[in-house]
Amino acid sequence: MPTKKTSAQKPVANAKLWGGRFKEELNELAFDFSKSIETDRRFYREDIAGSLAHVEMLAAERIISKSDAMKIAKALKEIQGEIERGTFPFQSGQEDIHMAIEQRLREKVGAIGGKLHTARSRNDQIALDERLYLRRAINDIIGEIKGVQTALLQKAKQHADTVMPGYTHLQRAQPVLLSHHLLAYISMFQRDVERFQDGFRRLNLSPLGAAALGGTSFPIDRERVATSLAFDGVVANSIDAVSDRDYLIEFASACAITMMHLSRLAEEMVLWSSTEFRFITIGDAFTTGSSIMPQKKNPDMAELARGKTGKVYGALMNLLTLMKGLPLAYNRDMQEDKSPMFDAADTTKACLKIFAAMLSTTEFHRDRLRETLNNDFSCATEIADYLVRKNIPFRDAHEITGKIVAFCIEKKRSLASLAMDDLQLFSSVFRSDVLECLVPEKSVALKQSKGSTSPKEVKSQIAFWEKVLRSSAQDKSMA
Amino acid sequence: MPTKKTSAQKPVANAKLWGGRFKEELNELAFDFSKSIETDRRFYREDIAGSLAHVEMLAAERIISKSDAMKIAKALKEIQGEIERGTFPFQSGQEDIHMAIEQRLREKVGAIGGKLHTARSRNDQIALDERLYLRRAINDIIGEIKGVQTALLQKAKQHADTVMPGYTHLQRAQPVLLSHHLLAYISMFQRDVERFQDGFRRLNLSPLGAAALGGTSFPIDRERVATSLAFDGVVANSIDAVSDRDYLIEFASACAITMMHLSRLAEEMVLWSSTEFRFITIGDAFTTGSSIMPQKKNPDMAELARGKTGKVYGALMNLLTLMKGLPLAYNRDMQEDKSPMFDAADTTKACLKIFAAMLSTTEFHRDRLRETLNNDFSCATEIADYLVRKNIPFRDAHEITGKIVAFCIEKKRSLASLAMDDLQLFSSVFRSDVLECLVPEKSVALKQSKGSTSPKEVKSQIAFWEKVLRSSAQDKSMA
Amino acid sequence: MPTKKTSAQKPVANAKLWGGRFKEELNELAFDFSKSIETDRRFYREDIAGSLAHVEMLAAERIISKSDAMKIAKALKEIQGEIERGTFPFQSGQEDIHMAIEQRLREKVGAIGGKLHTARSRNDQIALDERLYLRRAINDIIGEIKGVQTALLQKAKQHADTVMPGYTHLQRAQPVLLSHHLLAYISMFQRDVERFQDGFRRLNLSPLGAAALGGTSFPIDRERVATSLAFDGVVANSIDAVSDRDYLIEFASACAITMMHLSRLAEEMVLWSSTEFRFITIGDAFTTGSSIMPQKKNPDMAELARGKTGKVYGALMNLLTLMKGLPLAYNRDMQEDKSPMFDAADTTKACLKIFAAMLSTTEFHRDRLRETLNNDFSCATEIADYLVRKNIPFRDAHEITGKIVAFCIEKKRSLASLAMDDLQLFSSVFRSDVLECLVPEKSVALKQSKGSTSPKEVKSQIAFWEKVLRSSAQDKSMA
Amino acid sequence: MPTKKTSAQKPVANAKLWGGRFKEELNELAFDFSKSIETDRRFYREDIAGSLAHVEMLAAERIISKSDAMKIAKALKEIQGEIERGTFPFQSGQEDIHMAIEQRLREKVGAIGGKLHTARSRNDQIALDERLYLRRAINDIIGEIKGVQTALLQKAKQHADTVMPGYTHLQRAQPVLLSHHLLAYISMFQRDVERFQDGFRRLNLSPLGAAALGGTSFPIDRERVATSLAFDGVVANSIDAVSDRDYLIEFASACAITMMHLSRLAEEMVLWSSTEFRFITIGDAFTTGSSIMPQKKNPDMAELARGKTGKVYGALMNLLTLMKGLPLAYNRDMQEDKSPMFDAADTTKACLKIFAAMLSTTEFHRDRLRETLNNDFSCATEIADYLVRKNIPFRDAHEITGKIVAFCIEKKRSLASLAMDDLQLFSSVFRSDVLECLVPEKSVALKQSKGSTSPKEVKSQIAFWEKVLRSSAQDKSMA
Repeated sequence: MPTKKTSAQKPVANAKLWGGRFKEELNELAFDFSKSIETDRRFYREDIAGSLAHVEMLAAERIISKSDAMKIAKALKEIQGEIERGTFPFQSGQEDIHMAIEQRLREKVGAIGGKLHTARSRNDQIALDERLYLRRAINDIIGEIKGVQTALLQKAKQHADTVMPGYTHLQRAQPVLLSHHLLAYISMFQRDVERFQDGFRRLNLSPLGAAALGGTSFPIDRERVATSLAFDGVVANSIDAVSDRDYLIEFASACAITMMHLSRLAEEMVLWSSTEFRFITIGDAFTTGSSIMPQKKNPDMAELARGKTGKVYGALMNLLTLMKGLPLAYNRDMQEDKSPMFDAADTTKACLKIFAAMLSTTEFHRDRLRETLNNDFSCATEIADYLVRKNIPFRDAHEITGKIVAFCIEKKRSLASLAMDDLQLFSSVFRSDVLECLVPEKSVALKQSKGSTSPKEVKSQIAFWEKVLRSSAQDKSMA
Repeated sequence: MPTKKTSAQKPVANAKLWGGRFKEELNELAFDFSKSIETDRRFYREDIAGSLAHVEMLAAERIISKSDAMKIAKALKEIQGEIERGTFPFQSGQEDIHMAIEQRLREKVGAIGGKLHTARSRNDQIALDERLYLRRAINDIIGEIKGVQTALLQKAKQHADTVMPGYTHLQRAQPVLLSHHLLAYISMFQRDVERFQDGFRRLNLSPLGAAALGGTSFPIDRERVATSLAFDGVVANSIDAVSDRDYLIEFASACAITMMHLSRLAEEMVLWSSTEFRFITIGDAFTTGSSIMPQKKNPDMAELARGKTGKVYGALMNLLTLMKGLPLAYNRDMQEDKSPMFDAADTTKACLKIFAAMLSTTEFHRDRLRETLNNDFSCATEIADYLVRKNIPFRDAHEITGKIVAFCIEKKRSLASLAMDDLQLFSSVFRSDVLECLVPEKSVALKQSKGSTSPKEVKSQIAFWEKVLRSSAQDKSMA
Repeated sequence: MPTKKTSAQKPVANAKLWGGRFKEELNELAFDFSKSIETDRRFYREDIAGSLAHVEMLAAERIISKSDAMKIAKALKEIQGEIERGTFPFQSGQEDIHMAIEQRLREKVGAIGGKLHTARSRNDQIALDERLYLRRAINDIIGEIKGVQTALLQKAKQHADTVMPGYTHLQRAQPVLLSHHLLAYISMFQRDVERFQDGFRRLNLSPLGAAALGGTSFPIDRERVATSLAFDGVVANSIDAVSDRDYLIEFASACAITMMHLSRLAEEMVLWSSTEFRFITIGDAFTTGSSIMPQKKNPDMAELARGKTGKVYGALMNLLTLMKGLPLAYNRDMQEDKSPMFDAADTTKACLKIFAAMLSTTEFHRDRLRETLNNDFSCATEIADYLVRKNIPFRDAHEITGKIVAFCIEKKRSLASLAMDDLQLFSSVFRSDVLECLVPEKSVALKQSKGSTSPKEVKSQIAFWEKVLRSSAQDKSMA
Repeated sequence: MPTKKTSAQKPVANAKLWGGRFKEELNELAFDFSKSIETDRRFYREDIAGSLAHVEMLAAERIISKSDAMKIAKALKEIQGEIERGTFPFQSGQEDIHMAIEQRLREKVGAIGGKLHTARSRNDQIALDERLYLRRAINDIIGEIKGVQTALLQKAKQHADTVMPGYTHLQRAQPVLLSHHLLAYISMFQRDVERFQDGFRRLNLSPLGAAALGGTSFPIDRERVATSLAFDGVVANSIDAVSDRDYLIEFASACAITMMHLSRLAEEMVLWSSTEFRFITIGDAFTTGSSIMPQKKNPDMAELARGKTGKVYGALMNLLTLMKGLPLAYNRDMQEDKSPMFDAADTTKACLKIFAAMLSTTEFHRDRLRETLNNDFSCATEIADYLVRKNIPFRDAHEITGKIVAFCIEKKRSLASLAMDDLQLFSSVFRSDVLECLVPEKSVALKQSKGSTSPKEVKSQIAFWEKVLRSSAQDKSMA
């Protein structure tokens, strides 16, 4: 194993950083193994924002001089500009984004750059960066969820009266409105929004000031920093502040549930675009062909999102495994929290975005959906319910209807083709009003319960969601 | 494969249930494979409570007669009594708890028993039972968490001033107060409580009335049922009501995070009771010996809890896998949700309970904890901070201190043994007040930041938690 | 927390077991938390077999007397009889199956019963029991896999020439033989068999003699015990023997992959039995109806197996989590390995068994499968390949065919309806022999590559598997 | 959402690829979502190797002309050179590595480049690339495992006679040889090697020739391709060839178990380098300091490896989730298999490599290890065994010894300090030879069982492993 270092790779910053009692430099292999800058450079904005708030407070509390603070702040802003313009001198010897920025700071302002780290540790700094990042990620994801909800609502409005077979066990069960089916997903995604919001509330506290683990002997003002970074308060216990990663796991768990919902919608889009179902046509711009089979039009986006569910589940399992059994406070294992965090956030966001766009291009085939109901038994429940209204106990009504269905299957007839004579073979209580139960549109209209698939209920749900989504859009435009 | 059925095993209920169009009885192997009664019989209370609320509403809405309703309600209460007294005739031919109860109901009241299932399906019934069960499970778990928090707070109060080494990377970092360390766990568990409460709020809606998936044509009153079962409202969309299992996954996720916290405390208790640490002695009543090594006193309860973390993580992964890619609405896969739900709930509850009890018997060795700090370098940070207060930039102060540590290691001396002369070899700014930084008790007292390990801050945290835990205890006693 | 003990619950055995230096009895709560007898009593056969081999060796090596050994062996056999007849006095105060059996042994033979545990520890005893159990579980599972393979092969033979659409992306791709499709599953399951066999080979070593962790000072003969228990040898390192659980994880992983395969077949059976596909009818005896929708015939067994995949994945994650980061040698966490082991084994076995039975009752609808190919574009690839054979580069051939498909879609025509005139609009190289490419049966027959879906290749595969499955059946009958 | 495309981003290749029946180009967002080139460009070597073998066979079978084949082969080799020199024109409009290479091929050789894809599909091509990649990854990982085993063996040889406390439950159990403890890990890792080898054997079959799913009508020679790519044969069923990902899951599972082993060793290295244990000092070049605590010397590499276990567990769960419930044959979800595959391979390899290097720099403190045994009760088992040899039943011997230990604890004495008089208070069978049981070196030497911690057995194990590792090194040098 080579230990010679080329100057470019030399981990200079680190040697300086803790070199006091170390006689040997970090091995190159070990440096490569332990550095995190490829992952955590995405935090540059959060890191600099945190440093600006920290240095401003250090000056306000007279821990460092105002003029030092101003020099540091100015340089930090320049550094942010450099990173954003792509001119920042990232070097292979830099261990992480914190060190890269601090090294550059020292190049710019000299030794006083070293004052920035007063009353701070990388342990609280990284917890800060993660919390700031997650606030942004959560807001982004909530925005994308709204996009999917809006696309679903749009389709629901277009198909407020379109009937389709409702399924259980992937067997046709009862006619439902397509709009009702789509609204079920809007409800699921709304719970996802709430879960992300709950997580946001729980993580929106500043860990800064915990230093390595025990707090600091400098007279810092943690609330001031928290306020300037728009936190709701400070993490109450300094050891907890640096050893906790709940916020990450809770976030990953919310992402996993959202992806589970998407995987269900994806499954349905794959089914519905099959030749057998033919319920939808996804726009050409969101499907792909085959390199070998010219007739193929594949629902790849839906399949990919369904597959990416695994990545987010894996990220959650990664984080849970990582934290299992770690003694307090910070352990280096925790550095490994960033790649699952980014994986969960990026994947969830990208899948939501593609679904919103894909749904907009998707055509639901009203006629085909309606036509499928002509020859099946989806209305059988209505016959059973009819019998119950004629005072036959439910279980008996069910059995009579079962016999009618069996009769149809044997005779290769549809329910809709049955005449009064046929029905009265099975029960004398049938009257001519039973026939309207067999018309899918009538069947859904007969539903009376709150939240049911009746057009009246569905319209009320549509109105409710329009209001919710409009108001949340306004929230956003005001933000 | 045998198809002969002994009378005892004959799945009679089912044959009746959907037999109308079926020509053959369910195969015995298939019956055994698909029945869930061994698992879901735990729901009997929830199932009967739901049926009572449902039948009361059916009568109120004149869907069934008052007298039928009364007969059914009376019989249901008798059935609950039979189950609780152990006299209920469970039979091997019963598929699930719903069917077992309904079959018994028919034995008691005859055909009118069949009216109970009017405007209801097993799909909404099972969702109801699970939600009712989880409300109870969440309240139980929150109660157990409070128990652990109370035991931790008790120890924190006993050791409000006990110093110990604080660790990062399992290396001694800085002196902290034992109480501060224990309070970090109270904070973690408090977030767990909040997560369970958020989940509770989200799940506390009645799914009843969704029927199979599309609602019902009977004029039911879903809100009435919801109110009588103490729900906050009804699930808004009937398809969502029967196809959603978010509440289970969110619950399992909250359990997994709680277990992660316990696994960390468990790890520390295992470490602390080792011969090498000797920080604690767990009571004999909560340790075990060895069948072969007579001197052993093993921290088995902590180890078992740490190991059981796997079971809860596994339950979460089970549920996420289960729901992935399922089309709407109900699919039979979802029957498999019960064993991970019970595993997560039972395991989490049992581990919390044992920890509360074990912690109470655990003795923390104040002298040993203090003594460990005599010969180490935990106070080095204080020297660095001292130098910063003398206006030396942090990074330089860090390097000077590193050299002092290296000097001590080479000379086999402790920091505490250093005299002014020694220190001034490294920097001329040292004055005699530096010496008090080297006393652990002084070191912690020097901390000034909010949430730090200073006795003042820790006392304030203790007071805060006493109030929180006392008030939640009162909530409970009023409930 | 109550500490009073009823005599029935008193954990007497344990108190005796390690009581020498313990002043207090194990707390009741702790006893309940730590006992494993409900789970590990399933090991009684393995435990007794191990003890018989051990005691026989102790006598042969003159570590205990022959007469003591005979008394112990006789009593152990009686105990096995008692357990099997249900007369064994299981008591609530027994911690695990090892202790229950040893306690009973002492009741039968007095103090000499204590000699059985010479040169042995529960640490090597439990590892032995698990390995013995897994050998049996693996053989059982392999037997069940053969059952599924045999059922699939049976169907493949019945449908050696039945054409169906082959799918990619759930879009129809090319005609394939149903038999070829089913044989793909036989191949998957064969890899499962091999994985289980590899795991078997790796675990079939005796851990006995490792004692607690370091071996024993008694002159035992580990090979003798290994041979008498039909092991291939002994675990080479005593610390490894008691701290390893690889064999469990490898087993759970093999189960997880098998379940993944089953979940794919289950998904297809659910799809195929939908109204939209109508490719199969599963026998009444393996489907269920609905409590509310009389027309339903649900593929519950397939759905349940698909859902149970989650349980096995969860068991694997459980075991991996459990073992993560445990220092050597035995830790009590490892007691928690049994429930995931049994879950994985039982679930996999039951799902395989039900699939073998269900497949036998499943009717594949030859006419429907054939008919679906009339109006689709599954044969498009054949046109492209035809063009390539006429020396048109593949990519261009693909594009020409794509245009033909687009033409058909626009004109609402099927590929099969195209005449030579139509085709020559797109390329002048078409000759009348192209038309046979459009007949599905011809299309599959045109395939020439090894392992392809041509009838010739498929017949050769069928013959191969017949031989493999026949010979493995013989292996079994000879065993 | 913008649909305008800059020329650079235009997914030209795809438009050409399946454009025949598509009227609209792939949406930019969808293109970005579905492209895989950032991940799969790592396959360029495998992809080109596969194409070379394929084109050579096409020519040999006269499916394309020899001269076309030579042009294609020449161009492919040039392309490989371009990629390796970094001059390959990767463009943002390229979807995956297959298309990027084919596009470049057409630039070089014109339309005949389109002939390469004759009798091939991306479905079998990607399966080929993955199998080729995994062969290399497995060989690399096995090499790294040998490196760790060699480093462990080196330390074991240096410490063939060093005694240390052996632990169970992290409580001291019995003296063992450090070498014996280290050899336990060599055994674990050897099983890992075998698992990787078994997986290799199972995956080393060529899928090429399966084409999209059903094989091809071109007279290809699959065996020829397989032989030229050093496969052991061909995948027998074409549908299986493109729909199977077992090999990936089996690989990820083997990686997960290896990481579990590393996590245990990592945990021990963290423990052993704590102030409390002080068993080892890891070289400065493999430890890091703290940015705030100058005295820290952290075992970061061990912690990071322990943390990275989560990544590999997550990758396994990702793959299992991904494949759950997918119908045959290829589904686009499967594209998501590459990132967990690379994560598992890269992480496992890097962790093994760092451990081999770190172990070499690690000093085990012989004196400290020995000294810890002076004042503990690790030798208690020997006393019990002594009593058994004097014909006292094991359980009674255990109890007597327990009382001796309790006596010592009460009197604050060590076992080693006991005189004959003390011992005879507890049993009259004690003779002076018991005293040597209390010397750790004697205690280990008393062990007689195969695979025990006796110096004789350990030396034999060391000799065994030296031979195994030497011969495997030779295998490598011959390869």
